Amino acid sequence: MSEIAGKTRSRATADDVARVAEVSRVAVSRAFNPHASIKPEKRDRILKVAQELNYTPDVAARSLVTRRSHLVGVIVPDVCSPWESQEIDQLTTALQAEGFATLLFKTRTDRSMDSQLLTYMKGYNPDSVIAFTENVGPEILGQILDRAVPIYVTYPHEETSAENPQGQRFDRLDVVQRDGIDQAIALMQGFGARRFAYLAGDPHASASLEREYVLRQVMAARGLGEPLIVPGDFTYDTAYRATINLFRVGDGADAIFAANDVSAFGALDALRHDLGLNVPKDVKVVGFDDIAQSHWKSYDLTTVKIDLDERVRALVRLILRRLKNPDAPALTETIRTKLVVRGTVG
Amino acid sequence: MSEIAGKTRSRATADDVARVAEVSRVAVSRAFNPHASIKPEKRDRILKVAQELNYTPDVAARSLVTRRSHLVGVIVPDVCSPWESQEIDQLTTALQAEGFATLLFKTRTDRSMDSQLLTYMKGYNPDSVIAFTENVGPEILGQILDRAVPIYVTYPHEETSAENPQGQRFDRLDVVQRDGIDQAIALMQGFGARRFAYLAGDPHASASLEREYVLRQVMAARGLGEPLIVPGDFTYDTAYRATINLFRVGDGADAIFAANDVSAFGALDALRHDLGLNVPKDVKVVGFDDIAQSHWKSYDLTTVKIDLDERVRALVRLILRRLKNPDAPALTETIRTKLVVRGTVG
Repeated sequence: MSEIAGKTRSRATADDVARVAEVSRVAVSRAFNPHASIKPEKRDRILKVAQELNYTPDVAARSLVTRRSHLVGVIVPDVCSPWESQEIDQLTTALQAEGFATLLFKTRTDRSMDSQLLTYMKGYNPDSVIAFTENVGPEILGQILDRAVPIYVTYPHEETSAENPQGQRFDRLDVVQRDGIDQAIALMQGFGARRFAYLAGDPHASASLEREYVLRQVMAARGLGEPLIVPGDFTYDTAYRATINLFRVGDGADAIFAANDVSAFGALDALRHDLGLNVPKDVKVVGFDDIAQSHWKSYDLTTVKIDLDERVRALVRLILRRLKNPDAPALTETIRTKLVVRGTVG
Repeated sequence: MSEIAGKTRSRATADDVARVAEVSRVAVSRAFNPHASIKPEKRDRILKVAQELNYTPDVAARSLVTRRSHLVGVIVPDVCSPWESQEIDQLTTALQAEGFATLLFKTRTDRSMDSQLLTYMKGYNPDSVIAFTENVGPEILGQILDRAVPIYVTYPHEETSAENPQGQRFDRLDVVQRDGIDQAIALMQGFGARRFAYLAGDPHASASLEREYVLRQVMAARGLGEPLIVPGDFTYDTAYRATINLFRVGDGADAIFAANDVSAFGALDALRHDLGLNVPKDVKVVGFDDIAQSHWKSYDLTTVKIDLDERVRALVRLILRRLKNPDAPALTETIRTKLVVRGTVG
């Protein structure tokens, strides 16, 4: 490593740091590796000396030797939707605590990824890649990534130990959505709702399609017939317009189940501020996600919660488990959902 | 480069790609460098062949040679506040279009940065670093970064060509806030407001402190006396509680100028849903930023807009200008603010 690093910098070396801090060369390496075992006081002393001497291991040079980049690629359709931004925020905090930096990639609007960008991603040699989109599938990432095993969030109907499709190498966070959806429908049914509308999300997103599938199952089991499907795209503006159309052009509904919280906000504002309807008296509304904004007084939304802490911890566990066992078969973690009751059903 | 790259991979080489695509070795290099001049059809053909042959330049290896990492470090206090998330979203899109990936770093809650994380950042050798916090100052980043010149967002009272403080090497995006603040106060004054409260942001953030400074100047010039300062932290919950205290414990106000839109939402919900006051009749409210949520019907907020498109374009220009002229003196770009009138003043 020192010869390679020597080509690019003429600063203090690890040996200088070891000499001044009165530790071994190995201890200096360990101090800069958050996964290595070393006493905290010793690490602090070494890092302090390193800073005084202006020494730092060059990650680019080091990654040629260790094949670890300490980078985690995160592929997202957008950063600015509240759910995604809250997830990226917590994920970045959790990854930093484990010594990884977040390398952010945005997909195109159809949730696929530019091929030049994929080439770049490969070049950065990430230790792991989390794909928050099914349109950059394992058949694409598997070909592109040398070493990292990609992680996907999937939405199975039931808890399952099912293997990946033949030959596809990826790890999975399974979000089993049924519990919260069943609780939501039961609550609305209990308050008298019979005519349900599903305000759908982006038609490219399996999260929304699977929500609709489970909703149909749950409603059938409860003798509620078919939900009315209202197309949407997870955004406030589309949900707002779709809700107005549902009541002014269509026959309305007495319960709206929205594919995410932001769509539920759009529906609530349309019902109250444009259509002059009372929520929850005239129409009941439930969202999905439990983003931070859901408790804001203007909305005070009853919603199906995916526990973000739990979800982020499971993603980080998948990364650490995979790095420990590079050749293990497909790894999975599973989380469930539950209803959070607030003011929009009653 | 080929020798270095050869140590880590035994895939197709650039020479293989050049042979199959029937172009020169230099053209292959150019195809993978978004800043190099090459015909789009030629680039597409080369990238297609590269993908077929499963060739990609290793960025880590390449960066040892070119000293370009194609990474832009972004340091933020949090990713999940709407303004920050919208800015990171647009910035990532704009950077990707120029061939850069976004490397995300979160500060500690006091907006400073962990020293181990700083060491990592240095190791990634970013081409540029944008610091959205003044608590990781140029004296820190200047010491840490080898080559990249950091960019800071500053909030000067007036447009200025002022140099940086002695010896500090950084580039600046200057946000001159006065115009929009003056328009906001004039509008509220025109609708009869006399007792103004400033619902402050995070006391560590110069954006909020400078907003307060300009607000005092503008109000004095308009013969309006001193604003009442209500401590806050840019969050909904703090703003909500502070507004209730302002009216239940304090003497209230007939206009609230909030340091950001999210705080304005908290104030609006407290005024309407807890205090039973009418906005804009009883109290006028203005926010700052013009985030996407500001047009939502529950808020319909009059606010001082920082044009996000313009801001992101200016940041990207600073990066490109600096990479073109590594030794130029401090570079600056300047943007201004303006009022967006909606329903919370009248």
